[in-house]
Amino acid sequence: MTLGEVFISELAGTAILIILGCGVVANVALAKTKGAGGGFLMVNWGWAIGVFAGVYAAALSGAHINPAVTVGLWASGADEFAPGVEVSFSAAMVYFAGQMVGAIIGAFVAWLAYKKQFDDEPDAANILGVFSTGPAIRSYGWNVVTEVVGTFVLVFIIIAFAGTPDELGPLAVALLVLGIGASLGGPTGYAINPARDLGPRIVHALLPIPGKGSSDWAYAWVPVVGPLIGGALGGLLGAQLPLPILE
Amino acid sequence: MTLGEVFISELAGTAILIILGCGVVANVALAKTKGAGGGFLMVNWGWAIGVFAGVYAAALSGAHINPAVTVGLWASGADEFAPGVEVSFSAAMVYFAGQMVGAIIGAFVAWLAYKKQFDDEPDAANILGVFSTGPAIRSYGWNVVTEVVGTFVLVFIIIAFAGTPDELGPLAVALLVLGIGASLGGPTGYAINPARDLGPRIVHALLPIPGKGSSDWAYAWVPVVGPLIGGALGGLLGAQLPLPILE
Amino acid sequence: MTLGEVFISELAGTAILIILGCGVVANVALAKTKGAGGGFLMVNWGWAIGVFAGVYAAALSGAHINPAVTVGLWASGADEFAPGVEVSFSAAMVYFAGQMVGAIIGAFVAWLAYKKQFDDEPDAANILGVFSTGPAIRSYGWNVVTEVVGTFVLVFIIIAFAGTPDELGPLAVALLVLGIGASLGGPTGYAINPARDLGPRIVHALLPIPGKGSSDWAYAWVPVVGPLIGGALGGLLGAQLPLPILE
Amino acid sequence: MTLGEVFISELAGTAILIILGCGVVANVALAKTKGAGGGFLMVNWGWAIGVFAGVYAAALSGAHINPAVTVGLWASGADEFAPGVEVSFSAAMVYFAGQMVGAIIGAFVAWLAYKKQFDDEPDAANILGVFSTGPAIRSYGWNVVTEVVGTFVLVFIIIAFAGTPDELGPLAVALLVLGIGASLGGPTGYAINPARDLGPRIVHALLPIPGKGSSDWAYAWVPVVGPLIGGALGGLLGAQLPLPILE
Repeated sequence: MTLGEVFISELAGTAILIILGCGVVANVALAKTKGAGGGFLMVNWGWAIGVFAGVYAAALSGAHINPAVTVGLWASGADEFAPGVEVSFSAAMVYFAGQMVGAIIGAFVAWLAYKKQFDDEPDAANILGVFSTGPAIRSYGWNVVTEVVGTFVLVFIIIAFAGTPDELGPLAVALLVLGIGASLGGPTGYAINPARDLGPRIVHALLPIPGKGSSDWAYAWVPVVGPLIGGALGGLLGAQLPLPILE
Repeated sequence: MTLGEVFISELAGTAILIILGCGVVANVALAKTKGAGGGFLMVNWGWAIGVFAGVYAAALSGAHINPAVTVGLWASGADEFAPGVEVSFSAAMVYFAGQMVGAIIGAFVAWLAYKKQFDDEPDAANILGVFSTGPAIRSYGWNVVTEVVGTFVLVFIIIAFAGTPDELGPLAVALLVLGIGASLGGPTGYAINPARDLGPRIVHALLPIPGKGSSDWAYAWVPVVGPLIGGALGGLLGAQLPLPILE
Repeated sequence: MTLGEVFISELAGTAILIILGCGVVANVALAKTKGAGGGFLMVNWGWAIGVFAGVYAAALSGAHINPAVTVGLWASGADEFAPGVEVSFSAAMVYFAGQMVGAIIGAFVAWLAYKKQFDDEPDAANILGVFSTGPAIRSYGWNVVTEVVGTFVLVFIIIAFAGTPDELGPLAVALLVLGIGASLGGPTGYAINPARDLGPRIVHALLPIPGKGSSDWAYAWVPVVGPLIGGALGGLLGAQLPLPILE
Repeated sequence: MTLGEVFISELAGTAILIILGCGVVANVALAKTKGAGGGFLMVNWGWAIGVFAGVYAAALSGAHINPAVTVGLWASGADEFAPGVEVSFSAAMVYFAGQMVGAIIGAFVAWLAYKKQFDDEPDAANILGVFSTGPAIRSYGWNVVTEVVGTFVLVFIIIAFAGTPDELGPLAVALLVLGIGASLGGPTGYAINPARDLGPRIVHALLPIPGKGSSDWAYAWVPVVGPLIGGALGGLLGAQLPLPILE
């Protein structure tokens, strides 16, 4: 597979992830939708199926659709990012680029789908919340800790998946993200993916949404740095885990 | 397989889809049910399992149970609608006919199951809402956009399923519809299927439900045109996606 | 396999079904539980996993755990109730007996688990509701129709499962019951299984629960007759469905 | 496999279980989280996916991650705790030790993720509830009965899983725990695992959380004794169940 195919594959998968992920937050958080007030578990399911669908779309490139997963595999000492794609700095850059462009496209499409709801939304915090995460209690250090823990669990268990054969395919990682969201999403809204947060934040900054308010750039580094640390730790410890089958 | 078998297969699958789909809306929306006020995520699960069950019933014909899927496969350049059914205009018409008749039968059966609840329902909007979709904010152009996006994701990922083997069978598409509903159902109620909307709307127009109100024919073209455009786009782009296995 | 093994197998599976099924209603409906007011979708999941677990326990006997399934297979013209168990009147009686005894044991165990909650419950309708179903709007004829539709879908799709191979095992029927509950459970509480309703109703009549009120025997025939008719219709029509693989 | 690998494997799996399990209770129960008031079904999903992820992490050692499962397998007469690990007293002690250390680590990590929310929580009962279970109605005898029933179902069906091949892998036990929680968690909060309750209770006693209140040691024996009895009964009866395939 060429790095061009990797780029397209990661772009497509991340775009699908963000369309469904930002979409479900729009449905639950914006006032004039049919799902308004649908609850946190509904948000968890929307993001989980976003991962599920995104992984199918990005299957050729190993379906990272998340820079923290790319970094985690790198840290684990794996030889390949996907069958036929050797680990290298330039390959990682292609993964990151596809993920960022895909996240930007996905956030734009989610905005299109909810255009009239954004135009009618009175609360700027809800508008930003559709695009990017924010803390329930602002405390940059502890917010980083929460993102580290969530992303650690994500990458650690993704590595464990390789050791326990099943026939679930992309459903396994989708359910894992459902659980991480329900269990560890309370303090920061579980970015656990730098592209998922930064790409849509850029779109929020650019789009002409009435009364959209600040893009909260002061917080923007937290859901980038936390997941990258957590992903690297997950890869390092995951590689030490005794597993029945090591690929 | 004969086109007569295709007709019966699509009819059966679409009828099951609509019994469970319109059924869950009745349970959540009508006043005198045990599930009244059950929430949007419950509606998403009901439609998802409607797809799940309908796909088993229509497995022989490839389980389109949705004209937008038929159009999407056509647009993707596939040779066959199902194993043994070549793509052709007349085959497509048989698919559409089975889907429409099935949707009409399904809506009628759902009405039978909730007969007493319909008779006691004071709100005409709830009655129509059981049968057909409607917009949270009426704006035909943007409503079409929302339906295009939702159906694009549906058909694009159905094509991606072919490239990532798993053993989930019909569960994959059911979960996809769960996610599309939760994530993209807020503005228009996610028809994403012309037969799902038009068939039950006809039944609503015909049935003698007390105080049922208008069938809102002014909106009826939106959930037909939007899904057909979205399905065609999903098929066209899905065919360009780099995938591990192309069937 | 002997008919004695069939009896034990169906007894075990139906007991597990009813422990989890009546249990979830107790958790949601009784006042002094941690799940009080958990909602209809939670009830649907509890019954679905009751089916899931019960089918594993009863796998040897084909996991009917429901007289309407036994009748439906009979009506479909199948040769065997399970591998090694020929269809016959006496075999059917053994299935029914195991199912009824299992349902009675299961309801008793669910009562043990919620003993203190039953003792403290002020509302007699909630107490009966844990054991047996009842109509949202009492109308015996239409209540039968609702139970016929729900059980028809159950048996029709169980027969369709045989025609579409997947690797979901008991998860498929569990998800089907989730959907039937969410979609068709609104008017009558979806017995869709005579043993599920009659066995626990007997236990309700016998147990010394303070202020338990009537066991509503006037309604007891509806969730027996409706499911048996629906199961037979599902078997008859299911046998006519064109399917890729007919066992 | 060495007993050292068993220790690490059970430690890792139980730690993951408790991070996600205690995490979801924190998200739902503490006041200043995004999931506050998310409901009992959300708690059930969080614990279910905790089991799901934990089983992958502990796959090498058979993924008990619960002393009651170890005891249940022992009581069932099985030869091995996992492929290559013979049943013995010393092996059981290694399993218990890994489970307890893992539970303690997991509760500590969950506290880290929700550090600011714990510091701001006004209700001591909510704080303890994140770590350990407690009864809705305090009655030690009946509370033991409830824990016996829940753990019996857990171990009985885990043994039945061996008799019904499917390709769900760890998803089967995750869904089982979802159902046990929804259906039998109402009276006591479903410990069904001595390590799950005792390990976090020790962490609650040690951590410097403002206004944390009592660790309720008077109740601590119930979620140890009840699950051990229930697990042993589940193993004994499970071994008697007629199943298609007995390993």
